[in-house]
Amino acid sequence: MKLTILKEYLNEAIQHVSKAISSKTTIPILSGIKIDANYSGMTLTASDTDISIQNFIPIEKNDQQVIDLKQPGSVVLSSKFFVEIIRKLPAQQIEIEVKDGFQTTIRSGSSEIQLVGLDPEEYPVMPGIEEDRTVQIPSDLLKSMIKQTSFAVSTNEATPILTGVLWTITGGKLKFIACDRHRLASREMNIDAPEDFALSNVSISGKTLNELAKILPDQNTLIDVVFAENQVLFKMSSVLFYTRILEGTYPDTSKLIPQSFQTELVVNTEDLIAAIDRAYLLSREEKTNIVRLVMREDRTIEISSSSSELGKVTEELAAASLTGELLRISFNSKYMLDALKVMDSEQIQIGFTGAMQPIIIRPDAISTMLQLILPYRTTS
Amino acid sequence: MKLTILKEYLNEAIQHVSKAISSKTTIPILSGIKIDANYSGMTLTASDTDISIQNFIPIEKNDQQVIDLKQPGSVVLSSKFFVEIIRKLPAQQIEIEVKDGFQTTIRSGSSEIQLVGLDPEEYPVMPGIEEDRTVQIPSDLLKSMIKQTSFAVSTNEATPILTGVLWTITGGKLKFIACDRHRLASREMNIDAPEDFALSNVSISGKTLNELAKILPDQNTLIDVVFAENQVLFKMSSVLFYTRILEGTYPDTSKLIPQSFQTELVVNTEDLIAAIDRAYLLSREEKTNIVRLVMREDRTIEISSSSSELGKVTEELAAASLTGELLRISFNSKYMLDALKVMDSEQIQIGFTGAMQPIIIRPDAISTMLQLILPYRTTS
Repeated sequence: MKLTILKEYLNEAIQHVSKAISSKTTIPILSGIKIDANYSGMTLTASDTDISIQNFIPIEKNDQQVIDLKQPGSVVLSSKFFVEIIRKLPAQQIEIEVKDGFQTTIRSGSSEIQLVGLDPEEYPVMPGIEEDRTVQIPSDLLKSMIKQTSFAVSTNEATPILTGVLWTITGGKLKFIACDRHRLASREMNIDAPEDFALSNVSISGKTLNELAKILPDQNTLIDVVFAENQVLFKMSSVLFYTRILEGTYPDTSKLIPQSFQTELVVNTEDLIAAIDRAYLLSREEKTNIVRLVMREDRTIEISSSSSELGKVTEELAAASLTGELLRISFNSKYMLDALKVMDSEQIQIGFTGAMQPIIIRPDAISTMLQLILPYRTTS
Repeated sequence: MKLTILKEYLNEAIQHVSKAISSKTTIPILSGIKIDANYSGMTLTASDTDISIQNFIPIEKNDQQVIDLKQPGSVVLSSKFFVEIIRKLPAQQIEIEVKDGFQTTIRSGSSEIQLVGLDPEEYPVMPGIEEDRTVQIPSDLLKSMIKQTSFAVSTNEATPILTGVLWTITGGKLKFIACDRHRLASREMNIDAPEDFALSNVSISGKTLNELAKILPDQNTLIDVVFAENQVLFKMSSVLFYTRILEGTYPDTSKLIPQSFQTELVVNTEDLIAAIDRAYLLSREEKTNIVRLVMREDRTIEISSSSSELGKVTEELAAASLTGELLRISFNSKYMLDALKVMDSEQIQIGFTGAMQPIIIRPDAISTMLQLILPYRTTS
């Protein structure tokens, strides 16, 4: 292999694929990035077996010659040093030459780097994916659906299926659910899929989706999402992002969500976040994060937390509307803040069905987003 | 104690003094901030016994009423929660009221915070400092002298005196020296002190000086520096910063610095930093940081590093000037980068007296800054 490539393109591709490299891999070749160069362009591949990312760099782009290919070929280069050195090379042109035994020389300006390359034949082959089950999702909507749900996945590896976000598609609606037994986040949206296209029990690691969100383009472009037997492939213009579907059956969470409420509270989102944040600061010192909400006759709510060692925080807030039975309820303030911070609306509606029943947080009653938090049982 | 204070002033004072609070303190009351309020203003004090910082907030500033004092008094409040909550309070006005048993109530907008206060009588008294040995140093120069030397102090607690920066004053010249047995950084400047003002063997913790640098004002104001028996006090407009002088005798380092050179190299600072940085990236993987410099007949220098596992980096650089014997020399690239990065000049001069003799780096031959690095003995 011998070629010259523009630094900015190589650098961007490396930044994309290196997200798939795990420092904890037990398969030595997976600590490297695979490079394949041919007359259509250069492909970089990285994988930690859970995620695989491929980035294609074309020979030409926007009428600019990106790659000058002298000889096609392949090599695997250890990512450790490669990722950083490319970013720091002095010139815009980078020459890469692979010789016998995969000895690789990188030249740029007055720098010459020699790298011990590995045999690309030893690199695992990317899974073949049948493309018959494909939907198109706008990039920015996918990003916000990930942001609004993935924080609520379980971090407990004892139930791997709950570390994922559940994807379902029915009747042209895509729905995400994340649940960690103490809280649930769900978001729904209409997509351009055939009425009879149905998807169920597809759970994708929350961590993986957060990595994907970093690569997803900001512009509103359509992403092809291909569902295979045990893999999902996200196809962006130059990046292919493969991830496996988590094994197991995702529990039915639909019965968790109350259909009617005893009490409904409407309040300014920012004011509520600020008040709970101050109460959280103190409850965090107690390592419980417990905050108490008390509703009053005069349509105000009191939010408080206390620490035996440090003191007490008391916040008062006027509700925009408060209907139904007045409750006293305690909850995990960190979970409540996580849920409130992904609300994109000035006011939010909180529904209660009793002091020990799930709390439902939504921008409004007809919203496609819903956050659920289980309250705490407290003695007072 | 009862008063109302503007949030921004209280917040700034807390940010300043909290730099003196150590999370590892074994004296419980030192995990708090002491507040004293009287008719001239409010003083905040924090200390970890090595450093003590006091910040004074006046009743009025710039024709604005900062504090509305209703009743003078004192209290010690745990810094843990106090520092963060003040920043997050909703209103510009903060009311602080201390009642019996040092129970403290903080009110701001619709927030009410109750804090368990501690008895200020238990708080250590600030050292009384005789002000007869005082010099004035411009704030910005003090900052840059700290930056240009403190990185070279020893981190080895076995020789505490070397963890400090040595201050000497003779003939109206202030000099800083930091040395960790592998490198030395020194910087000198003229100050407005009497010819006969002499200071020797004053070593101040490098860590402490870095904390001081964060508080020093950016504007070119004069700082009063008061030297006492075993303490130094830095007096800024509203902040008093006390630190102790390290015990022991600072070694004589003057004989380390060669007076003439066998070889002198002048080179562009930025180019040299970039080349060594790339070589450092690889040598770091070997955990030795060793980089080799080879001088050539054609006035070029070669900088290289190698890793048995990964490969080799070779950099070529044209020298602006290269006189004397051509050398091959190896050194710690991390130390060299630290030294080069504090040079404020386009070109630097490096002096050598042999492959195993100290390397001297200066902006030019008459500079008030000098960096010294001991080379490595290598087999090749």
